[in-house]
Amino acid sequence: MLFHVHMEVALPHDLDPERRAALIAEEKSRALELQRSGVWLHLWRIVGEYANISVFDMDSGDDLHAVLSSLPLFPYMKIDVTPLATHPSDLRAQA
Amino acid sequence: MLFHVHMEVALPHDLDPERRAALIAEEKSRALELQRSGVWLHLWRIVGEYANISVFDMDSGDDLHAVLSSLPLFPYMKIDVTPLATHPSDLRAQA
Amino acid sequence: MLFHVHMEVALPHDLDPERRAALIAEEKSRALELQRSGVWLHLWRIVGEYANISVFDMDSGDDLHAVLSSLPLFPYMKIDVTPLATHPSDLRAQA
Amino acid sequence: MLFHVHMEVALPHDLDPERRAALIAEEKSRALELQRSGVWLHLWRIVGEYANISVFDMDSGDDLHAVLSSLPLFPYMKIDVTPLATHPSDLRAQA
Amino acid sequence: MLFHVHMEVALPHDLDPERRAALIAEEKSRALELQRSGVWLHLWRIVGEYANISVFDMDSGDDLHAVLSSLPLFPYMKIDVTPLATHPSDLRAQA
Amino acid sequence: MLFHVHMEVALPHDLDPERRAALIAEEKSRALELQRSGVWLHLWRIVGEYANISVFDMDSGDDLHAVLSSLPLFPYMKIDVTPLATHPSDLRAQA
Amino acid sequence: MLFHVHMEVALPHDLDPERRAALIAEEKSRALELQRSGVWLHLWRIVGEYANISVFDMDSGDDLHAVLSSLPLFPYMKIDVTPLATHPSDLRAQA
Amino acid sequence: MLFHVHMEVALPHDLDPERRAALIAEEKSRALELQRSGVWLHLWRIVGEYANISVFDMDSGDDLHAVLSSLPLFPYMKIDVTPLATHPSDLRAQA
Amino acid sequence: MLFHVHMEVALPHDLDPERRAALIAEEKSRALELQRSGVWLHLWRIVGEYANISVFDMDSGDDLHAVLSSLPLFPYMKIDVTPLATHPSDLRAQA
Amino acid sequence: MLFHVHMEVALPHDLDPERRAALIAEEKSRALELQRSGVWLHLWRIVGEYANISVFDMDSGDDLHAVLSSLPLFPYMKIDVTPLATHPSDLRAQA
Repeated sequence: MLFHVHMEVALPHDLDPERRAALIAEEKSRALELQRSGVWLHLWRIVGEYANISVFDMDSGDDLHAVLSSLPLFPYMKIDVTPLATHPSDLRAQA
Repeated sequence: MLFHVHMEVALPHDLDPERRAALIAEEKSRALELQRSGVWLHLWRIVGEYANISVFDMDSGDDLHAVLSSLPLFPYMKIDVTPLATHPSDLRAQA
Repeated sequence: MLFHVHMEVALPHDLDPERRAALIAEEKSRALELQRSGVWLHLWRIVGEYANISVFDMDSGDDLHAVLSSLPLFPYMKIDVTPLATHPSDLRAQA
Repeated sequence: MLFHVHMEVALPHDLDPERRAALIAEEKSRALELQRSGVWLHLWRIVGEYANISVFDMDSGDDLHAVLSSLPLFPYMKIDVTPLATHPSDLRAQA
Repeated sequence: MLFHVHMEVALPHDLDPERRAALIAEEKSRALELQRSGVWLHLWRIVGEYANISVFDMDSGDDLHAVLSSLPLFPYMKIDVTPLATHPSDLRAQA
Repeated sequence: MLFHVHMEVALPHDLDPERRAALIAEEKSRALELQRSGVWLHLWRIVGEYANISVFDMDSGDDLHAVLSSLPLFPYMKIDVTPLATHPSDLRAQA
Repeated sequence: MLFHVHMEVALPHDLDPERRAALIAEEKSRALELQRSGVWLHLWRIVGEYANISVFDMDSGDDLHAVLSSLPLFPYMKIDVTPLATHPSDLRAQA
Repeated sequence: MLFHVHMEVALPHDLDPERRAALIAEEKSRALELQRSGVWLHLWRIVGEYANISVFDMDSGDDLHAVLSSLPLFPYMKIDVTPLATHPSDLRAQA
Repeated sequence: MLFHVHMEVALPHDLDPERRAALIAEEKSRALELQRSGVWLHLWRIVGEYANISVFDMDSGDDLHAVLSSLPLFPYMKIDVTPLATHPSDLRAQA
Repeated sequence: MLFHVHMEVALPHDLDPERRAALIAEEKSRALELQRSGVWLHLWRIVGEYANISVFDMDSGDDLHAVLSSLPLFPYMKIDVTPLATHPSDLRAQA
């Protein structure tokens, strides 16, 4: 099933720059891997914010939490998850 | 460019049932047309709510407002628009 | 998977008393049926409010939305759904 | 009586890793003990958050506060308690 | 145990004046009765608002909900309940 | 006149433990003194929170501010004051 | 003592125009009388809103509530009262 | 001086269509007149909303309130005014 | 014109006590000077808070911002400004 | 297209004064450059706040995010972007 996920990142200003760069590189690497595997369907930047809106396709809340809490930036993120359903006017859902 | 759009519908309880059914049918018809034309990219129901999350691809704010305000349910909706940008970790954006 | 569902009911003061009583009876009947079927696991009243907190066990967001939107009181409810996962300290989840 | 409890944990980023690990282990141990004793009925993780939703069965507000404030993570948690009552449509409450 | 209860009343402007006066008289009568019985310990008006702050002493959430939902003005009130515990600095709680 | 006072305490995690213990002891001592003097009428703990709900009987806002700002924990508290009036249904106010 | 009072007026759109004009005239007459009597010290319009900010000098919460609830527009207002104290930097408070 | 003004319009669904069309035409006529006179500097639609963001250049709060409350749609609008000052990095403000 | 100004002060707990005392003394000195000059008309403490409500009489937003940002505590304050207009029921505004 | 942008700056109190002065000088230089290039149309200070309201004219969300995230103060700002459209009553939009 699909989940709408809003992630907002707040890295401390005094974070060591190398640690910061490494975290961001690891986050990108993990994000690309999850997109390639087909579970992270969409990933958009919100204009002007260190935040993104994503859509995940996961079998369960357990699976989604495992993925989200494995993200390198997870300790620095505020995450808000909204479960989605097929919309009756979705073009792809018409017979 | 892409816009994230949250629409929440509040039809009055005393709306004439035929008018209600007609409005919903017209809304669906218009939503399908806009999806076929390629400007309404995604349309998801939020579970448990008479609300949806959508993504539109439009050239400008003028174009998006023209489309949204043309929706048959527009007078009954609370709409919140968030502009999107390409995320640096978006798989499709990698060279 | 499990979903935490908060439902708040707002029946119009001028609703016909018979219609009101019928709606509430149908809601109760449907709620009992869904509990017997095993998908509506918990149903608690919030003290002092015409609201409840529930836990559902459903395979998908589509299934949950189908159930919630089938409730007789659905047009009069504000519903908020939170997806749940197994807690690592949950006694039932210990090997 | 039953209480719905929402707990959100915010551990400082600069907490000593050993102290952090010890706190989490003690919290888990205490949580399991309270579940075994029958007062902590349910414990669910909220997907994507370092937060949980719980249900406690306690005789009084004094007892509940004693238990919550004894949790090792209590100084790092924001807790919100909602008193519950039996719902008239609860299957278990039907005669 | 003690519960802190905030009640806010919103009577419709078009309520029949006799019905309104009767409701208010019944509410007062019921409030006095509950105070005499010892369960409604305190009842204060919030200055400038059609709202009150109360403290109830009840054995359970079931008992409190039964009392609150029996109030004649219940259908017109927004109620918020906060469970209380003995404060360690409460003079009455010192040995 | 009576004032409803909500106090929420936020002691820094890195506060020196001795300083912390001293502050809390001084706060308790001052709270007991103010209760004995008859100005601090009620003091309840909110279940699960480092917060209290109090009722003060003071002649003026000046007097109340002098008392609140003299509390040892004042620099660490967020305080919200609501003025109260006699409720027409208060049992003690009936002739 | 002084109280800061925020009043926001919401007259129903379908209120009879004569009743509306009478209410507003009575409100003005009562406001002038209370200003002349010295209890309503300040009365300002918030730019762009059907709302005002006022300062009252009253002996008690009972007196203030009696005055506020006697206003002809009271049933149509949302009122928020904040108790004030002398500021240590107030020029008038310097010896 | 400049004021940032946010206006949100909420016309009742049951407003007579002719009255509605007349109100909107009068509002437009008045808005154009105020723009021509130089006091209403900017007027933008918020995408997806029946709302606008405007900038006014007025000598005082009295003048601005007189203009805003003279708008035909004023009784149906929620208006929020923010006073502006010259920004030190404003290109037009550089000597 | 008049402006309603709400100022809330948040001095860091670890601020050097001498620096703290100096800042507060300078703030008081500046506040008295501005009151004597006639631009800072009213200054009240909010009971229980390190906050004040003020009324300023200034010719423009530029002037008000210059004054507010010159306050020694400005870097530690959250300030909210509301423009005021003459109220039609203000006693001083009657001819 | 036009975007309404609200920027709020929060520089840490312990930021090195030279670093602080350099950041602000670089921000001003960049802001002037973007105004000269025609993409940053308006820049106003909000009275009493370390915040501004701006209007940008950009071709896309990607372009706007690139510009905003290039600002020297970006890591210290909370930014909120609202897409704008031509208002039907805008004088400049009349044929």
